[in-house]
Amino acid sequence: MMQKIESVKNEQIKKINKLKQKKYRQQAGKYLLEGWHVIKEALINRPQEVEIILTVSDHLAVLRPYLRDHSWIVLEINDRVAEVLSDTVHTDGIFAVAKLPEFSETTLLNHESKPWLVLDQVQDPGNAGTMVRTADAAGFSGVIFSAGAIDPFNSKVVRSMQGSQFHLIVAQVHDLKAFLEIQRQQDYQIFGTLVDSSATDIRQIALANQRYVLMMGNEAHGLSTELAALADDNLYLPIFGQAESLNVAIAAAVLMYQLQMQVDL
Amino acid sequence: MMQKIESVKNEQIKKINKLKQKKYRQQAGKYLLEGWHVIKEALINRPQEVEIILTVSDHLAVLRPYLRDHSWIVLEINDRVAEVLSDTVHTDGIFAVAKLPEFSETTLLNHESKPWLVLDQVQDPGNAGTMVRTADAAGFSGVIFSAGAIDPFNSKVVRSMQGSQFHLIVAQVHDLKAFLEIQRQQDYQIFGTLVDSSATDIRQIALANQRYVLMMGNEAHGLSTELAALADDNLYLPIFGQAESLNVAIAAAVLMYQLQMQVDL
Repeated sequence: MMQKIESVKNEQIKKINKLKQKKYRQQAGKYLLEGWHVIKEALINRPQEVEIILTVSDHLAVLRPYLRDHSWIVLEINDRVAEVLSDTVHTDGIFAVAKLPEFSETTLLNHESKPWLVLDQVQDPGNAGTMVRTADAAGFSGVIFSAGAIDPFNSKVVRSMQGSQFHLIVAQVHDLKAFLEIQRQQDYQIFGTLVDSSATDIRQIALANQRYVLMMGNEAHGLSTELAALADDNLYLPIFGQAESLNVAIAAAVLMYQLQMQVDL
Repeated sequence: MMQKIESVKNEQIKKINKLKQKKYRQQAGKYLLEGWHVIKEALINRPQEVEIILTVSDHLAVLRPYLRDHSWIVLEINDRVAEVLSDTVHTDGIFAVAKLPEFSETTLLNHESKPWLVLDQVQDPGNAGTMVRTADAAGFSGVIFSAGAIDPFNSKVVRSMQGSQFHLIVAQVHDLKAFLEIQRQQDYQIFGTLVDSSATDIRQIALANQRYVLMMGNEAHGLSTELAALADDNLYLPIFGQAESLNVAIAAAVLMYQLQMQVDL
């Protein structure tokens, strides 16, 4: 028998709803997913990270084939409970509680020789989530958030990632220097980015392989001087018109694709 | 003597505030700008489009040098009026009423031989504004919105454009086919975009010059079949990872830069 929750005051629902706050996510080591599109990516790619599925009755049929080999807890909820849990205007009524992914230092080593994106102090959740989604499309190993960047499992970031967190590594590391050092030892090139025409024009870079790290900085202040100094090269994207700058997620996308498209994939 | 407005019930303020609605923008042929950064771009690049400047006293000194040769109406407002007019959480207290730009068919002709971006049915204001800003950075002639796309002078689009509407042509055209026909007669190539690997990989395109039109489609449905059929080529951007698609503003940015960087600029 599947448990059915019909009260928004249910203790479990209240507890799950608290996962929208960073403090509770870190205490519990869990976060909240919403929407069938994203939950399906979790069930397919990282079933071991999923703990609880909460759904209105509509999705029970489509969910059934996925349930066979797994021991997820499935709870039926009603529309009112769905509205309380939802972060969107029109919810499709399906949610999941997932474990925050944990990656060992070994995982962060030379990962299939594919590139890494580093987000230093990026604050806007839409920008951060979009960069994860774009890094996924561009075939990156993962996206590393600096300690001062937004929490990658903030609900707005999660919404923008559109499930890409189940395709690549998304991690917040406290010691970015150590991460860069590990990559350097694996013959990864380290690229920073600067909005400064004295930096290296992206068109001058010729890559022989995908072993590189691309670092993007804060929306207003750019990459920290400390990280820029650690880079083998700092890249800039030419401005052909009169705009002063590009949005950071846009710049990251153009750079990632520009680098990936010149490696013969 | 500068007029000072201290009541949020002032008739002129009420009228200006209505410019946040499309209906009133079209009736008046005007729209509302907010923020010194954007207003400065207007004063420098398109002074003839500015009619009224409304500002809290803080900006009067920085504004003065710009006022010399122009007959703008300048109104001083207080913080309460600024809050009413503002669309942001923290307003800097300066606003302007600007004329909606008008472009004749001649302007839309062969414009310095630079490329055009066409937004067909794009609905999200952030996406639309970001694409205008990116097209500006990439050195485009302008951005043409289809009749079914969002109003380019919607306040959220205006915020995302960050003043780029004063650097290039931003226009909504009712007859997109006629626009394309005019460009074709000027030897412009017409590129559509499709999320479909049977389309032409962007890496196969070799451009000799900047005479091209790039068309992006709706966030959910892509480019309309009708427009895709009018293209000389439909382009697609390879996905190297597992993401299903890219955000439309991200895809547009990668395509614009990929095309512009191969023309020797």
